[in-house]
Amino acid sequence: MGELETEARRPGRRPGPTETREAILRAARGLFAEKGYDRASVRAIARTAGVDPALVHHFYGTKEGLFIAAMEVPLNPPEMLPKILLGPREELGKRLVRTFFEIWDDPKSRLQLIAIIRSAFTSEQGAAMLREFVRSALLGRISVALDLPKLRVTAAAGQLIGVAVLRYVLEIEPVHSADVGDLVDLLAPTIQRYLTEEP
Amino acid sequence: MGELETEARRPGRRPGPTETREAILRAARGLFAEKGYDRASVRAIARTAGVDPALVHHFYGTKEGLFIAAMEVPLNPPEMLPKILLGPREELGKRLVRTFFEIWDDPKSRLQLIAIIRSAFTSEQGAAMLREFVRSALLGRISVALDLPKLRVTAAAGQLIGVAVLRYVLEIEPVHSADVGDLVDLLAPTIQRYLTEEP
Repeated sequence: MGELETEARRPGRRPGPTETREAILRAARGLFAEKGYDRASVRAIARTAGVDPALVHHFYGTKEGLFIAAMEVPLNPPEMLPKILLGPREELGKRLVRTFFEIWDDPKSRLQLIAIIRSAFTSEQGAAMLREFVRSALLGRISVALDLPKLRVTAAAGQLIGVAVLRYVLEIEPVHSADVGDLVDLLAPTIQRYLTEEP
Repeated sequence: MGELETEARRPGRRPGPTETREAILRAARGLFAEKGYDRASVRAIARTAGVDPALVHHFYGTKEGLFIAAMEVPLNPPEMLPKILLGPREELGKRLVRTFFEIWDDPKSRLQLIAIIRSAFTSEQGAAMLREFVRSALLGRISVALDLPKLRVTAAAGQLIGVAVLRYVLEIEPVHSADVGDLVDLLAPTIQRYLTEEP
C-alpha cells in the first residue's frame, strides 16, 4: 500500500526523497514489529515501501542502519564501538561505562531507550525486534572484536542494563542521583574484568 | 466500597476469613497502585477493605508482608535474606546468585516477576509501587545487614537484574539457555566483590 499512498498525495509528481525515506522507515517499523529484526528482510521492507531494495541500501547502508533509523535507536554501534574498543585496553571498562551513562543521561536518548525497552517488556514482537539487534549488533560485535565468549560480554552488558533499570526506570536512590564519575569508579572494574581477563 | 461489596454478596452473614482476606488484598492492590508502596498506609487499606487495621496486621504481619501477598511477589525477603546473608561470608556471592536464578528459573515465579517488572516499565504507578519495596525491603535490608553503602548493593542488584532481563525477557542466547552453575561461576565473583570488599 505504501507506494500508492506516497504517489497519491501529489499526483503527477515523483515522491521526494523525504517522502520516500519516511515510507521506508514506516515499512521497516511495521515489519520489524511483525517479524522481529532477524526475519524482516530489506527486500520485504523495500517491497512494502514500494521502492527498490538498492534504494534502501543507498539511504541506510545495512539492515542494521535501517533498524537504528526506524526505531530511533539513540546510538549507532557500528560507529561508536570501534572508538571504545580500540583505545588502550587497560581503560576499556572506564570508556564503556562512561559512554553508556552519557547516552542514558541525555534526556532525548533516555526517552527513546525507555520506549524501546518498554516495547520489549510488553510485547513478544517488541522483544523479538530488540533481541536480534542486541545479540548481533552489540554483543556479537563486541565478542568478535575482543575475541571473548559471548557469555562474558552478556555479563558485562547485564551489569550496565540492570543499573540503568534501577537508575532511570525505577529511579531508586542513591543510584538515581549518583554522579556518573562515581558510577564509573564503581562499575568499571567489573566491566574491565569481564572484558579483559581470561574466561 | 469494598465493605459493601463483601457484605452484600451474602446478606445476613458475616464475611468469612477468605472473603475478608480477598477484600484486604484487593484494597491493597488498588492503593499500592494508586499511591505507591511508601504512601499507601495499612490504615487506609484497612479502611478501604472495611476492616480493622489490627486484622490486616493479624493476617499479613507488616505492610511489607501485605505487599508481598497482594502483588504475589514470589519471594519473601524477610524470610530468605537472613539465610543467604548469614552463611559463610566467603560464599555469599555464590549463595545469592544461585538463589536468584533458582527463583527466576521456576516458571510460576518467573511469570509473576515479569508481570511486576512490566508494570514498573509501563506505568509511573507500577514504578512507584516497586521502587520503595525494592529500596527498603531488598537493598536497604542487605545494606544494613552487611554494613555496606547502598550504592554497592545497588551495583550487585543491577548485575543480577540486567542478566535476568537478557536471559528471561529478551531471551538472548547463549545466556538464555546457560546452566545456572555457569552463571554462578561467571557472576558470583562480581557479587562477592561488591558485597565483601571495602568500599
